[in-house]
Amino acid sequence: MEKLVGDDLQEGMIKWRRDLHKHAESGFLEMRTASLVAPYLESLGYELKWAKDVMKAEERMGVPSEEILDAHYSWAEQNGADLDWLPKFKGGMTGIVATLQTDKPGPVLAYRFDMDALDIQEDMAEGHMPFENGFASLNASKMHACGHDGHTSIGLGLAKALMDNKEKLAGTIKLIFQPAEEGTRGAKSMVEAGVVDDVDFFIAMHLGTGVPTGEFIAGNSGFLATTKLDVAFKGVASHAGGKPEEGRNALTAASSAVLALYGIPRHSAGASRINVGVLAAGSGRNIIAPLAEMKLETRGETSEINDYIRSQALAVLNGAAAMYGVEVEVDIVGEAKSSMPSSKLVEDLAAIAEESPYFTKVTAWSTDAAGSEDATYYMERVKELGGSATYCIVGSDLAAGHHNERFDFDEASMPAAVDVLLRSAWNLNNK
Amino acid sequence: MEKLVGDDLQEGMIKWRRDLHKHAESGFLEMRTASLVAPYLESLGYELKWAKDVMKAEERMGVPSEEILDAHYSWAEQNGADLDWLPKFKGGMTGIVATLQTDKPGPVLAYRFDMDALDIQEDMAEGHMPFENGFASLNASKMHACGHDGHTSIGLGLAKALMDNKEKLAGTIKLIFQPAEEGTRGAKSMVEAGVVDDVDFFIAMHLGTGVPTGEFIAGNSGFLATTKLDVAFKGVASHAGGKPEEGRNALTAASSAVLALYGIPRHSAGASRINVGVLAAGSGRNIIAPLAEMKLETRGETSEINDYIRSQALAVLNGAAAMYGVEVEVDIVGEAKSSMPSSKLVEDLAAIAEESPYFTKVTAWSTDAAGSEDATYYMERVKELGGSATYCIVGSDLAAGHHNERFDFDEASMPAAVDVLLRSAWNLNNK
Amino acid sequence: MEKLVGDDLQEGMIKWRRDLHKHAESGFLEMRTASLVAPYLESLGYELKWAKDVMKAEERMGVPSEEILDAHYSWAEQNGADLDWLPKFKGGMTGIVATLQTDKPGPVLAYRFDMDALDIQEDMAEGHMPFENGFASLNASKMHACGHDGHTSIGLGLAKALMDNKEKLAGTIKLIFQPAEEGTRGAKSMVEAGVVDDVDFFIAMHLGTGVPTGEFIAGNSGFLATTKLDVAFKGVASHAGGKPEEGRNALTAASSAVLALYGIPRHSAGASRINVGVLAAGSGRNIIAPLAEMKLETRGETSEINDYIRSQALAVLNGAAAMYGVEVEVDIVGEAKSSMPSSKLVEDLAAIAEESPYFTKVTAWSTDAAGSEDATYYMERVKELGGSATYCIVGSDLAAGHHNERFDFDEASMPAAVDVLLRSAWNLNNK
Amino acid sequence: MEKLVGDDLQEGMIKWRRDLHKHAESGFLEMRTASLVAPYLESLGYELKWAKDVMKAEERMGVPSEEILDAHYSWAEQNGADLDWLPKFKGGMTGIVATLQTDKPGPVLAYRFDMDALDIQEDMAEGHMPFENGFASLNASKMHACGHDGHTSIGLGLAKALMDNKEKLAGTIKLIFQPAEEGTRGAKSMVEAGVVDDVDFFIAMHLGTGVPTGEFIAGNSGFLATTKLDVAFKGVASHAGGKPEEGRNALTAASSAVLALYGIPRHSAGASRINVGVLAAGSGRNIIAPLAEMKLETRGETSEINDYIRSQALAVLNGAAAMYGVEVEVDIVGEAKSSMPSSKLVEDLAAIAEESPYFTKVTAWSTDAAGSEDATYYMERVKELGGSATYCIVGSDLAAGHHNERFDFDEASMPAAVDVLLRSAWNLNNK
Repeated sequence: MEKLVGDDLQEGMIKWRRDLHKHAESGFLEMRTASLVAPYLESLGYELKWAKDVMKAEERMGVPSEEILDAHYSWAEQNGADLDWLPKFKGGMTGIVATLQTDKPGPVLAYRFDMDALDIQEDMAEGHMPFENGFASLNASKMHACGHDGHTSIGLGLAKALMDNKEKLAGTIKLIFQPAEEGTRGAKSMVEAGVVDDVDFFIAMHLGTGVPTGEFIAGNSGFLATTKLDVAFKGVASHAGGKPEEGRNALTAASSAVLALYGIPRHSAGASRINVGVLAAGSGRNIIAPLAEMKLETRGETSEINDYIRSQALAVLNGAAAMYGVEVEVDIVGEAKSSMPSSKLVEDLAAIAEESPYFTKVTAWSTDAAGSEDATYYMERVKELGGSATYCIVGSDLAAGHHNERFDFDEASMPAAVDVLLRSAWNLNNK
Repeated sequence: MEKLVGDDLQEGMIKWRRDLHKHAESGFLEMRTASLVAPYLESLGYELKWAKDVMKAEERMGVPSEEILDAHYSWAEQNGADLDWLPKFKGGMTGIVATLQTDKPGPVLAYRFDMDALDIQEDMAEGHMPFENGFASLNASKMHACGHDGHTSIGLGLAKALMDNKEKLAGTIKLIFQPAEEGTRGAKSMVEAGVVDDVDFFIAMHLGTGVPTGEFIAGNSGFLATTKLDVAFKGVASHAGGKPEEGRNALTAASSAVLALYGIPRHSAGASRINVGVLAAGSGRNIIAPLAEMKLETRGETSEINDYIRSQALAVLNGAAAMYGVEVEVDIVGEAKSSMPSSKLVEDLAAIAEESPYFTKVTAWSTDAAGSEDATYYMERVKELGGSATYCIVGSDLAAGHHNERFDFDEASMPAAVDVLLRSAWNLNNK
Repeated sequence: MEKLVGDDLQEGMIKWRRDLHKHAESGFLEMRTASLVAPYLESLGYELKWAKDVMKAEERMGVPSEEILDAHYSWAEQNGADLDWLPKFKGGMTGIVATLQTDKPGPVLAYRFDMDALDIQEDMAEGHMPFENGFASLNASKMHACGHDGHTSIGLGLAKALMDNKEKLAGTIKLIFQPAEEGTRGAKSMVEAGVVDDVDFFIAMHLGTGVPTGEFIAGNSGFLATTKLDVAFKGVASHAGGKPEEGRNALTAASSAVLALYGIPRHSAGASRINVGVLAAGSGRNIIAPLAEMKLETRGETSEINDYIRSQALAVLNGAAAMYGVEVEVDIVGEAKSSMPSSKLVEDLAAIAEESPYFTKVTAWSTDAAGSEDATYYMERVKELGGSATYCIVGSDLAAGHHNERFDFDEASMPAAVDVLLRSAWNLNNK
Repeated sequence: MEKLVGDDLQEGMIKWRRDLHKHAESGFLEMRTASLVAPYLESLGYELKWAKDVMKAEERMGVPSEEILDAHYSWAEQNGADLDWLPKFKGGMTGIVATLQTDKPGPVLAYRFDMDALDIQEDMAEGHMPFENGFASLNASKMHACGHDGHTSIGLGLAKALMDNKEKLAGTIKLIFQPAEEGTRGAKSMVEAGVVDDVDFFIAMHLGTGVPTGEFIAGNSGFLATTKLDVAFKGVASHAGGKPEEGRNALTAASSAVLALYGIPRHSAGASRINVGVLAAGSGRNIIAPLAEMKLETRGETSEINDYIRSQALAVLNGAAAMYGVEVEVDIVGEAKSSMPSSKLVEDLAAIAEESPYFTKVTAWSTDAAGSEDATYYMERVKELGGSATYCIVGSDLAAGHHNERFDFDEASMPAAVDVLLRSAWNLNNK
């Protein structure tokens, strides 16, 4: 078995990855990233679409405010963005789809790569490899702590490798570069824009997730469906000593809601979760609180279970508001489905991975709970329309867990990922 | 100063009081009582009205069930009721108004006497006077523990004394015998039937309340407005282990409501109260509770404050039901207002009481909080229509506090009450 | 394949079952039942132990009060109990172990049969077979609605069949007749008395549970561990209007606890449950509630998960009491473990059942959640000491679900049960 | 009647007041203020004590952090503080007592003036007099919105007037300049340092409070006792999806506490209040919240009622922590008592005010609820030691309510205050 990724490409991916890591951009702010991804793909010969041609703006969830979008645009301008491409991604429309039309007929195969970082302050301390090697994030309180810098670099490496091997390929290959996977906010906007409506095979991938370097999992079925909700209770302030009866207390409404939310009954069909992670209420010690804001999330082993928890949660929120005579506003700022990979594709992909020299252990199926993922939007759409879909894991030794301030992955897993994905393109579309 | 109550009348009142005490009947069950009161008043020459002519049936609150009404009717038949009159009070329509039209023109003056006992088991033990003297209640779990047996007897005594002194009186005198003062359930039905719409002077009285024998208070202003509410949350049962998601939990809805009810903000204009005294929910340990029933009450130093607490409580109850997807039913089973006695009448009555040989101390005003009283319904109606009203206290040494199972009052206070009320009739209507 | 149960035994079992059904006795009240079971087993030649020789009195949970035990003893006296044996079971010590020592050496094999009925009022209506055939329960509000009347009859039938085939058997066979399986209250007292400490093979069985007549499941692994708790919050009464600050409110403490109990976080290792099925608090509308009583239960997919939920629940209960300045008392009135059947025994038993002419479908394993079962106490003890244990299901068509007032099972499943259990005794002890 | 305040002094006070307003300093940050007050009083001939000689550092409540204290010290250096005096007030020890020993024997008379501003952003808009006249606060988010700039200026004006009239005075006169009245945080530290232990007459004053220019109230008895509490619940974070059972949820503990705090029963002896004005909990949507912080306050019509509410609140906080297995820390960051002015002093002061040409209406007593005041600490100490104390109101027309961002008072009330206080010094000490 021959490694399909040469040293040059391997080094290129490391360079890209470190540049992206140093300029971490969180959900819908991937403007600098997109402005560099797009011209490279164009230079390779891909047909490109971006922004509103591959995203429905109104289907994005949890988009930052105009002020933040504008401020970040300026930051990108001053931090190495491609100034020709940057304006195309203004306002957080940072999705890109690159298409390679081969000369042979065949199926449509799509790969998804997510590009966003997290709102975490990277650890600037000895022993943290990105810091020691000078590529820790320059963007304060933003950090690639989940490996999407690696995913984007793998996407670019795959793009290069596919084009280098174009004559061996068949059908159509699409590379989807997606914003805002964190918080499960971005996929829906691209799916609703139709980017996978013609797709026969869909593959999403993730580095790490507890799987060590040298291992590969072809089908991960453990994603929980989830909904992320921002809630605001709006009451009326009054002086708590002087006129307690004139207030409408948003803080007590929120407290009542919190207790009832955690008390939503378990579902007999499988695991469910609910969490109110953040609550901020009130303005002064002696004022009846006029405002209480909560960040909460629901999860379910299946989309149906998550729907049950979410609908109970909405009843709780509305009821709590009514109890205390306050208003409540609920925004859905993220949502993902559960999705089962397609059996045949999982088995085929496992067999393909067995051919790769990078992996010493290949597993077809994993049911490890791996949180939530909005790749499930693509998977469900593709399967609905008759295609096959899977979510695979490329093992990578980690310095610390995902979302930790000292997260780092093993860069050697990037050529492994390109190798197996390139093999999948050859194999699946030539059958 | 001459005592206006002769020995015969005094002994008669004691006899009546002990008979009523022995046959205690609680709210809207005063059928035996009414069946004995009515023919006596008729025999004296009063013009009588009763039942639906002096009560609006639908304005009664907290009426016992048909089963209880029927069972008690049978009890009354077998325990000495006047069988000619008993049928007239069937179904709990036990109010009576007796009118004396004097020969002289003058104002309309009304006195209110309440007739009901409490749902308390009388103490059958040494040292409790009614037990030792053989007139403890024969009616299990019913007891005259607030002195209304005395009030009724005073009403009959006053009726006799007025008729004996008819030639000295002027105008019109009405004696109102009311059911169901406990729980503040009966007055509204008589007021809404118009029994005080023509009244110029209204006097309600109470024995005891902490005031010793020999003292008199002409105007008590300390009554809290109150509302009594029965609440039922109705959910859906399900097996808590097998199908927790199929239940709609009435018990958690009630628990949430309880916490929010106690948390209703204080009112800056004066004292308020709320209490959930009873909560009963659920049918089995492993069943999601389909039903939760609560008994609660609100109070306010003024009717406005009570209205505020009650309206907040209703919002809480409805909101809690919505939170948990259950239904809620709320019945108002009692209600009383706050009411300030009329100044001139209080002062006049105090001056009249100074003439009575029974009292060694007369006080015009008291603001002692004395719980709630539905006599306030009459008072507010009379004042609205331009008349004057008061609530007076005839002191009486007590063996134990009101509503205690060993309650007993000093029977010597009965002639004192008749004396001062008779003097008030002479005085007020002849001015 | 030959049926091992003759017509006589089949008819005998039906007669027993109908007699037991007609005289339903709930947990620890199985005095009449035991008084009939014991002499029959003795007459067959079994060596008998009972009451304190097979039960630790203090390890029983949820024992009825002395009044109830005494009253039921009288009922049993008057309703056909064996008056020689009845006194031995006084006070709810109703467990029996019958031992058959064969002539050949071999392992110790034990079977568990539960004898108790439920606190349910049987439906006395057309279409309910026991009613139509004159054997509906004479004991008001007690009903065999889970089939333990059948289990007891199967135990007696097996006793007869074993003795009839004694010469073919090896080792020792123990028949355990247990009280109070409902509420998982009785097993622990027998296990702690050591009744299975010498056992090599342990088999418990249940009729029905959704499995139709003609089917058999050799190993059910779906039992949830559970704890049943009775809780009393004890506060101080005071007049809610007059002295609200003097009360210590047990009702609010309970309400706070309820919300926190339902909010105990899910466990990532598997399913958990909590339910407060019953809450009764307070004495009067205008009294701060001095007492609140709750019935609650916890469950877990494993004993560890149940332990987690229970320990969190205890923290909640103690904390809620502290919040409101009240006392709390917690009684554990039932408890069961989760338990995984022994693989080899399950497979052996499935193979044995394949030999029985009564079954058209045999399944080795089922993981269907089947609530909780205190047979798990025996299973865990036997496995701890090196033996094997399983819980098998003998299919039986049901007229209505378990614990329903119209529950009835197919009596044809009784000989099927005896057949397979007799085969297991032959087979397991002769290997 | 002659006005005792000349034009020069009146203009001087306006100048001072505007300078203080422009350089607003909140509680314990009154370093610039104190650095200007002290040398002026010294220049007039007063004997001065300050910082640890008049304050117990550890009895201060709600002291800002070291960072804030240091940063503000720098601000004061750069904004006109007296650089000789400024170091004496470092670290927030900003209290000053100036004593005038007259030549005649007589009682000790003390006046209290508070110097602190509020954490409010002043309105920078047309129509707001301080903004239009160029003396709106330069210190961002700090504003004299309660008139303490006026109080300090009155204190300085009185100091000048007393010294100008020294020959007419008797006994000893103390002027107390106090930090951090807002939040009732500063008085206790000065009282505990003994500054009024020798005082016979104590007078505190306030401008405005709803009383118009030209009116004077000699004794305000409506202050509520209060306690201000900062609470932190400290739990354990965990991933809400992955390991919910490993967290200890501070947010739910706080929510439970909030509901129970608002539910603390009313007190029959008088008004009470409780408010949780601010709650901030949690770090991320999908993290079990490890920290929840609350700002709350209790109030009572008497110190006893406040003590009752506070002790119930502490039980709630500890119980809620126990329920959820978290720690709780409670800091008392402010406290004030209720205090009844001394009758004789109130009447004397009212008679004195009648002599002042500035007042057209003088009232002896007011019971208007006026929030809470830590002047009550001095009052209670003085009365305990046998002296007399009062709290008087000098009327002043207001542009907007106290603590409003557009608050402004009528500067004409400053000479009125000096006039009546100077008269009180003459009168009280010469009797």
